[in-house]
Amino acid sequence: MTETSNELIFHETVQRIQPVDARLLELAVERQRHLTKPEGSLGRLEEVANRCFAIFGGHSFSVSKARIVVFAGDHGVCAEGVNPYPQAVTAQMVMNFVHNGAAINCLAKTCGIELRIVDVGVIGPLPFCAEIVNRNVAHGTRNFCDAPAMTLPEAFAALRVGIDMANDAVADGCTLLGFGEMGIGNTTPASAIAAALTQRPVREVVGRGTGANDDCLRRKISAIERGLALHCEHLKNPLDILRNVGGLEIAAMCGFCLGAAANRRPVLTDGLIATSAAALAVQMQPVVKDYLFAAHTSTEPGHVSLLESTGQQPLLNLGLRLGEGTGVALAMSIVQAAVAAFNEMATFESAAVSVKDTDNPR
Amino acid sequence: MTETSNELIFHETVQRIQPVDARLLELAVERQRHLTKPEGSLGRLEEVANRCFAIFGGHSFSVSKARIVVFAGDHGVCAEGVNPYPQAVTAQMVMNFVHNGAAINCLAKTCGIELRIVDVGVIGPLPFCAEIVNRNVAHGTRNFCDAPAMTLPEAFAALRVGIDMANDAVADGCTLLGFGEMGIGNTTPASAIAAALTQRPVREVVGRGTGANDDCLRRKISAIERGLALHCEHLKNPLDILRNVGGLEIAAMCGFCLGAAANRRPVLTDGLIATSAAALAVQMQPVVKDYLFAAHTSTEPGHVSLLESTGQQPLLNLGLRLGEGTGVALAMSIVQAAVAAFNEMATFESAAVSVKDTDNPR
Repeated sequence: MTETSNELIFHETVQRIQPVDARLLELAVERQRHLTKPEGSLGRLEEVANRCFAIFGGHSFSVSKARIVVFAGDHGVCAEGVNPYPQAVTAQMVMNFVHNGAAINCLAKTCGIELRIVDVGVIGPLPFCAEIVNRNVAHGTRNFCDAPAMTLPEAFAALRVGIDMANDAVADGCTLLGFGEMGIGNTTPASAIAAALTQRPVREVVGRGTGANDDCLRRKISAIERGLALHCEHLKNPLDILRNVGGLEIAAMCGFCLGAAANRRPVLTDGLIATSAAALAVQMQPVVKDYLFAAHTSTEPGHVSLLESTGQQPLLNLGLRLGEGTGVALAMSIVQAAVAAFNEMATFESAAVSVKDTDNPR
Repeated sequence: MTETSNELIFHETVQRIQPVDARLLELAVERQRHLTKPEGSLGRLEEVANRCFAIFGGHSFSVSKARIVVFAGDHGVCAEGVNPYPQAVTAQMVMNFVHNGAAINCLAKTCGIELRIVDVGVIGPLPFCAEIVNRNVAHGTRNFCDAPAMTLPEAFAALRVGIDMANDAVADGCTLLGFGEMGIGNTTPASAIAAALTQRPVREVVGRGTGANDDCLRRKISAIERGLALHCEHLKNPLDILRNVGGLEIAAMCGFCLGAAANRRPVLTDGLIATSAAALAVQMQPVVKDYLFAAHTSTEPGHVSLLESTGQQPLLNLGLRLGEGTGVALAMSIVQAAVAAFNEMATFESAAVSVKDTDNPR
C-alpha cells in the first residue's frame, strides 16, 4: 500500500463504476404490474425494489445480507471550540461500539445487520482489540483554519480504506451496504463541504450538531468561514475540497461509496456527515447516484442541500441527528421489505386473483 | 357468545382501558438523558420508546414478539360501482394470504412478524383451512345507500371478534400489536366514517382507493353522500356511525384497538381504513389514544383528517396505499429499534463516555 498504489486504486475504482441499465428499470416496473396489489400501491417501496433489481443487473437477487461500516476519525478544527463534547469522546465511543453499548449496536442487532468499526483517524490511543479494524491513516486531521486538513497522500490513503472496506464486504457476500461515522466535531467539516459543494452561505448549511449552544455555533460558523477563505483557491474539485476541509472518516466514507458502486451494490447514506462524503463521491463520478439510497433526513440544515446534490429522496424522516449509521440501520429494513415484496409476491395469474376491470367498472 | 354477551364484553373492554401514567413518561425522558447519545438525537425513536415504557407500566419490557391481524370483510356498497375490482377479489386475496403470496406476507416474514388472517365478513365461500380464523359474522354488509350496513347485533359481534383477537394475541405473549384489512370497496365505508367523524365534505376525504377512474370516483362520492344523507339522524355516536356506514372488518379492527388498549399493549394503525376503525375506538374511549401508534401516512386524503382525530403523527411516509397492514409491518421495525435502543444502550456512566461540557465548551 504505497502512496502511489492508493491513488491508482482510487482512479481504477472510479473507472470501474458503470451506470445501471435504464431498460432494467422498465422491466422491473412491468414486473410490479403483475404482482397482487393495485398498481403503484407500494409507493416508494416499488421504486426502491426496481432500482435494486437494476443494480443487480436484472438477475435473481437478494439484499438479506446487510452490513454497516462505521468509520471513526478526529478533527483538528475542534481546537476552535466548535463542539460541546471533549475530543476524547471519539475514542470512548469507539470502545462503546466494541462493547455493543451505542445506538448503532442496538439498532443493527435488532435489524439483523452486521457492523464493522474502522479507525481511520482517531487521535487515540485505542487499545488493541479484534473488533476494531485498525486502518488509522493519521491521528486526526489538522485544523483547517490553519492548514489543509489532510495531505494529498493522507486523503488517498483514507479513500483507500473505504474502497477496501466495500470490497471486503462484497467479498464476504454482503448484498446491501451502508455506512456511518463517529468523530467529535465532524459536523464542522461536513458543513464546510456542504457550503463548498452547494455554494451556499455557511450560515444556511450549519446546524447545532450534537447540541452546540449559541457561542459554540458562532465559533463553528466562524471556523468554517475562515477555513473556506483560507483554502478558497483550492476548492475547485471534490478531491481538493475533501483534502482541505474534510476529514479522514469522510474520505473513507467517500471511498466506500465509490467501492460500493464499482461493485454494483446498493449503498445507503446516513445523515449530514455521511451524505457530505456521498456528495463528494457523486462529484467524482456522477454515476455513483445510481447506487445510492438516502436513508433519512436529519435535522441538520446542510443535509437537505447535500441530498439535493446527490439526487436522492430520503426514505425516512424521524428527526434523527445522531450519526453512527443509525438512520441507515432503520432504512435497511425498508429496503429489505421492498425487495422481499418484489421477489416473493404472487402474481395475479399465479394466485388466481381477478384483475382490475377498467373497461367495465360496474 | 349470545348477542347480549357481545355487547357486555364490548362495554367491559371499554371500561378496562386506563390512561398511561404521565409520570412514567417523565421517567423515560430522564433515562434517555443518560444514554450514550446527544440529548434528543434519536428523534421520534425516543418518543416512541418513552411511550412504550409508560404503556408497559415502567417495568422491564420488550416488543420483540409482534403480531399483525388482518381482518377481511365484504361491502354491500360495491353494488354502487365504487371500486374497479370485482368483489370476488376479497376472498381471492384471503386465499393469497393463506398461500403467502400477498405483500403483507412478504413484509411480515422479512420483519419477523406473526400474521393472523380473520374472516369477519367475507361473502365467501372460503374453503376450510387452518390458516384462516373463521369468525364470519355475516356474508358482507348491506349497501348503506339502502339500509344500515349492519344490524346492531352484527356490529357488536364484529367488535367482539376484534376484542377476542387482541386478547388472544396477548395470551400468546405478543407485546406489539398491529392490524390491517382486506375488503374490496372498503375505502368507501372508511371515507364515509371519515366524513361523519370529522364533519368534512365528502369530496375532501375521498380518494381513488385501489385506483378508481373518474367515473368510479364520482359514483363513490355519490354513494357516500347518499348513505350519509339516508342515515343522518343516526350518526351521532361512533357505534351508530360504525353500524350504519361502516364495515364488519372495520368493526373488528375497532374492537382490536379497544382490546389492545384494555390489555395495555402498543398497537399500530395502518392506512385509511384501519385508521377509520381506530378513530371510532378513540371516540368510544379517548384514552385509547395513549396506546396507538400511526404507522404511516397513506396517499388517501381522508387518512390525514382521521390521523388528526386520533392525535397521532405517523412514523413513515412512503406513499403506500395498499392496506393489509403493510405500513404497520414496516413501522413495527422502527418501534422495535426504538425500544432496543432504550433498553440496551449503555449510559455515559457505564461506558465511561465523557459528558457534554456545557459550562466550559472550550
